[in-house]
Amino acid sequence: MSTDPSVDLAALTALLDGRYAEVRDLVRTNLVKYASVLEEAETLDRAAFRERVRDLVVEMAATGQTGMGFPEQYGGGGDIGASLAAFETLAFGDLSVLVKVGVQFGLFGGAILQLGTEPHHAAYLPDLITGRLMGCFAMTETGHGSNVQALGTVATYDAEAGEFVITTTEPDANKDYIGNAAAHAELAVVFAQLEVAGERHGVHAFVVPIRTGAGPGAGKPAPGVSIEDDGLKMGLNGVDNGRLWFDHVRVPREALLNRFADVSEDGTYSSDIDNPDRRFFTMLGTLVQGRVCVGGAGINASKVALAVAIRYALRRRQFEATSQDQEELLLDYGQHQRRLLPLLAHTYALHFAQEVVAGECHRVFSGEVDGDPDEQKQRRELESRAAGTKALGTWHATRTIQECREACGGAGYLAENRFTALKADTDVFTTFEGDNTVLLQLVAKGLLTDYASEFEELDQLGMVRYVAGLAVETVVERTSAHNLLERVRDLLPGGDEWDQEAGLFDSAYQQAMLQFREEHMLGGVARRLKRGIDEGVNPGEVFSLVQDHVIHAARAHVERLVLDAFVDKVDAMEDGDNKVVLGMLLDLHALSVIEADRAWFMEHGRLTASRSKAISREVNALCRRLRPLAGDLVDAFGVPPEMLRSAELLGLSDRTGSPRTA
Amino acid sequence: MSTDPSVDLAALTALLDGRYAEVRDLVRTNLVKYASVLEEAETLDRAAFRERVRDLVVEMAATGQTGMGFPEQYGGGGDIGASLAAFETLAFGDLSVLVKVGVQFGLFGGAILQLGTEPHHAAYLPDLITGRLMGCFAMTETGHGSNVQALGTVATYDAEAGEFVITTTEPDANKDYIGNAAAHAELAVVFAQLEVAGERHGVHAFVVPIRTGAGPGAGKPAPGVSIEDDGLKMGLNGVDNGRLWFDHVRVPREALLNRFADVSEDGTYSSDIDNPDRRFFTMLGTLVQGRVCVGGAGINASKVALAVAIRYALRRRQFEATSQDQEELLLDYGQHQRRLLPLLAHTYALHFAQEVVAGECHRVFSGEVDGDPDEQKQRRELESRAAGTKALGTWHATRTIQECREACGGAGYLAENRFTALKADTDVFTTFEGDNTVLLQLVAKGLLTDYASEFEELDQLGMVRYVAGLAVETVVERTSAHNLLERVRDLLPGGDEWDQEAGLFDSAYQQAMLQFREEHMLGGVARRLKRGIDEGVNPGEVFSLVQDHVIHAARAHVERLVLDAFVDKVDAMEDGDNKVVLGMLLDLHALSVIEADRAWFMEHGRLTASRSKAISREVNALCRRLRPLAGDLVDAFGVPPEMLRSAELLGLSDRTGSPRTA
Repeated sequence: MSTDPSVDLAALTALLDGRYAEVRDLVRTNLVKYASVLEEAETLDRAAFRERVRDLVVEMAATGQTGMGFPEQYGGGGDIGASLAAFETLAFGDLSVLVKVGVQFGLFGGAILQLGTEPHHAAYLPDLITGRLMGCFAMTETGHGSNVQALGTVATYDAEAGEFVITTTEPDANKDYIGNAAAHAELAVVFAQLEVAGERHGVHAFVVPIRTGAGPGAGKPAPGVSIEDDGLKMGLNGVDNGRLWFDHVRVPREALLNRFADVSEDGTYSSDIDNPDRRFFTMLGTLVQGRVCVGGAGINASKVALAVAIRYALRRRQFEATSQDQEELLLDYGQHQRRLLPLLAHTYALHFAQEVVAGECHRVFSGEVDGDPDEQKQRRELESRAAGTKALGTWHATRTIQECREACGGAGYLAENRFTALKADTDVFTTFEGDNTVLLQLVAKGLLTDYASEFEELDQLGMVRYVAGLAVETVVERTSAHNLLERVRDLLPGGDEWDQEAGLFDSAYQQAMLQFREEHMLGGVARRLKRGIDEGVNPGEVFSLVQDHVIHAARAHVERLVLDAFVDKVDAMEDGDNKVVLGMLLDLHALSVIEADRAWFMEHGRLTASRSKAISREVNALCRRLRPLAGDLVDAFGVPPEMLRSAELLGLSDRTGSPRTA
Repeated sequence: MSTDPSVDLAALTALLDGRYAEVRDLVRTNLVKYASVLEEAETLDRAAFRERVRDLVVEMAATGQTGMGFPEQYGGGGDIGASLAAFETLAFGDLSVLVKVGVQFGLFGGAILQLGTEPHHAAYLPDLITGRLMGCFAMTETGHGSNVQALGTVATYDAEAGEFVITTTEPDANKDYIGNAAAHAELAVVFAQLEVAGERHGVHAFVVPIRTGAGPGAGKPAPGVSIEDDGLKMGLNGVDNGRLWFDHVRVPREALLNRFADVSEDGTYSSDIDNPDRRFFTMLGTLVQGRVCVGGAGINASKVALAVAIRYALRRRQFEATSQDQEELLLDYGQHQRRLLPLLAHTYALHFAQEVVAGECHRVFSGEVDGDPDEQKQRRELESRAAGTKALGTWHATRTIQECREACGGAGYLAENRFTALKADTDVFTTFEGDNTVLLQLVAKGLLTDYASEFEELDQLGMVRYVAGLAVETVVERTSAHNLLERVRDLLPGGDEWDQEAGLFDSAYQQAMLQFREEHMLGGVARRLKRGIDEGVNPGEVFSLVQDHVIHAARAHVERLVLDAFVDKVDAMEDGDNKVVLGMLLDLHALSVIEADRAWFMEHGRLTASRSKAISREVNALCRRLRPLAGDLVDAFGVPPEMLRSAELLGLSDRTGSPRTA
């Protein structure tokens, strides 16, 4: 690499856009067409902005953009991967629009599609795909967010009338934070404890009309339904979140979304899945696309922030440094490179990791695994990967947007420069579609139980007992440092000293480091769980004591998956400058991930002090080498300039230093 | 400690409130009286909210709360420490009110007081203290924020007319982000390059009327002045930030705030300070109170977030854990303790560090150091300490508020639960009154030059050359590990093995660790600077290459000061449960600071792998021990319940699960 590589921008964008370049371009076109919504978010009052967002979602629906994941026979596009790509790309624009699309087509539409059967599809899909029929997804309650199995809404079957009676049974059992509920939804998919003939069967979903009257948004609450607005939120105020109470609301027997369970007219409950926990998690599992979508949205929102901050750092000068005649560009400061460029590298890494999980999602939901002997395991692995990528992608968004705002100084605080909306709107991404901490626990559970068939039946305590009950060899040995070292020894030079001898820029070394960490941590968690139970400690207390290790292990696992995805991507590229550049980004990503946890590696004998310091030096050096390419690397994301706004900050304004108003 | 200690709440609040308990209580009373402003921030439109905030500031001024730092002869309180305490406490409430107070009384009033002389005081202070006269502080320009010395506004003296002519000379030289400028200020203190008889004398401050007409806010822009609204911001929308352009605006000779320099009628420039850089930094130095205030505000805003999140975690249950009958309280989860309790400990530490810097500020600005042989050094040390505490306090606020929001899940996203405003309003704290990164560079400069008298004349490049030019023994040796080890050896058991032998809970050990780190880092920076220059590298490039070390070293210094302040506080307490409890908090603070940088300590031979792991275990154990005290520890902050809002989240609502509207 004697000459500096340059970026082939078009080819890099094509690489990032991947299989769904056309779909992404359709969304880009729509975003530009409706770019005014970014300003309307600031100028319209809340009620008017909600209407504007609704109208815009309906208009976008007419272009086919939002219905790609639905079957063609009902007016959809029949391509789940396209649907995920379209949603992700929408995150370049106003995020109320994004979330409204997610609520209507992902959550509401997705529940009808995945949990319902043909009559439900025929009755609702054609109208919901066009947006004529608006609905909401009423799962979360004030008292129960993460622990959905403990919901307090009850649906009792009245065999005489052939109806379900839906009731909010206790304080805090009202539905809460429900998007589309406060103003626009005619229907709700309501999750409630099903009770038939005095017996509880766990949480099921029902289609419940919550507003009367045909005109969307024009209706009043249906009899027995109370609706309250959630009020002002930190962001996403173009989405009408609300609370719902049900006071003996009657719906026909056919309102049960009966793909996984049914109640006969005479009140006989039946399901192909006997275990109620597994039944519930199977239902939830079908809704995994929501998590895939939110993760992708977080990653793409990060791209917008980086595009603004890096482009600004390439024109803003402050303080004399290398020259006495001219102030220094911000991005020529070592510290500024350190702030932004590793985040840029992580964004590329997460983009490719998201491509993998979206691809898996497409494969699983397009029927490609149906009937495979390990179909269930594949589904569970997808759920785990979606949960993990969502957690890392959304935390990455929070961190990146904050860093980019600060890197733009006071200018970053002005609303027109995008960070205001990005920060406020993405904030809840770390919480909704699953709290990130809870999601990482789910990831750990899958790893610790090796996605055993019991997996879905296990709550936290069950998981503790399950792992503690395993023979030592099954978990602890599987993840022992010894075995792992044997495995990596063959891949890397240096034999037992692989971690000292291998080159820092060898991907196999970087992968081995993350794999060692993951397996060592998992083994440690398993050992701790076993020891706690063996010592007679209450399983809940054992869990609490080990919880930070559980989460760290899950995070280590997902970081390994992200790195693997990036390595695979670069390996598959044709030789050329772009491959060289992405290789540098890959090194920066991998080494700064290792650097961030270098204390752990030193504590566990996998990094000497001097090698640890060398890694920090190389991170700095990589930042310096990538700095001339940084502009191209954010341009390659293909965020339409209209989505960046920031005219003055980016020097796109035609102002020449005089006020706009006299 | 066989029995668990309990908190004496009143005594702990008294300890926190310190010398100015009465002042803090006055502010608390005012905050409660005007508590409706927290909702008005959400319900009023921007223009109306600005007026509301202005009115409220004027009403608060009438209670004496905002004028405590001004001399009594003009209607002030004559007590700088009281003024700082009052301002900090105001951060429990709406932060637009806080910042408006800061703009009017701190920046505008402070500039008149500190840079002006008796005629200016007599002319302006009485009316500005009551809020009858509103003003702004016009320093920052679009093109120059951090590098204030390079401002593009020019004030040319016209000897014939005996007037200064103020002009915005180039694009981006307009004043920007100026609080009070868009609507309310009649006067501006304008910072401009002074030019007398063709000679430039550096940046000076001038009183310039920017609006005509007496009625506050009623006036139009004065002739030659153009005003533009900065528009919607991420937060603080009760403050009217704006841009100012000056087109040959004439002000009388007396408009120069002439404490440090003057221009005679015939156009002769004079100043007691010959060096223009030092003159400028002396002027800036008088304005240090602003930084002290912002740091304190960040720390106190963190208390509000912690009060909500910890109280919520003590009533919210989710998932079964230790009991099958009842879900687990959030704060009984190990991970939840890890998220919140170290932040609580850091908040206490920063509170006491802020008390020290505020005390120093009071001492220096109450004339107590005037004429001391090292008066200048004391002033420079105060500036450095203020800069460092501001940087750490405001970054702490950003981090703590974010963590607390996430710890409250979806409920944290609703505006009524305070995080919306806390997050949006405090965001700019890391940038205004000095960008945190730039401030830490200032801290490092002071340390590297030992606050030499040349200190203030040195820009980044000058600093590089200065340090590189020192004899090795002056900086490098002063901070050598060898000397440091000798010093700590006497304090701690274990001789040369002090870092292995001392108890983790020994404050002397904790302090020695942070001191070792700081001095080692500073020595490293000095060596790198010297080496770079010796090798003939461009000083700017040397600086850029070393910049991350510079900032890390400064941070290490400030963290050491924070720890020392906490240790001193606890040492001075009378024996009793409160001392035991604060001692535990101190350990949690110190050990989690060491833990966060344990990689560095391992890299530099001051921590073995096993001791590093032991520290993490002790952090967890301390969280567990402090968990039963967490509620009292946030209550002790004395945040009025009205400032927390969050009625439903905290279980203070009288709702019983039914909707507010049918």
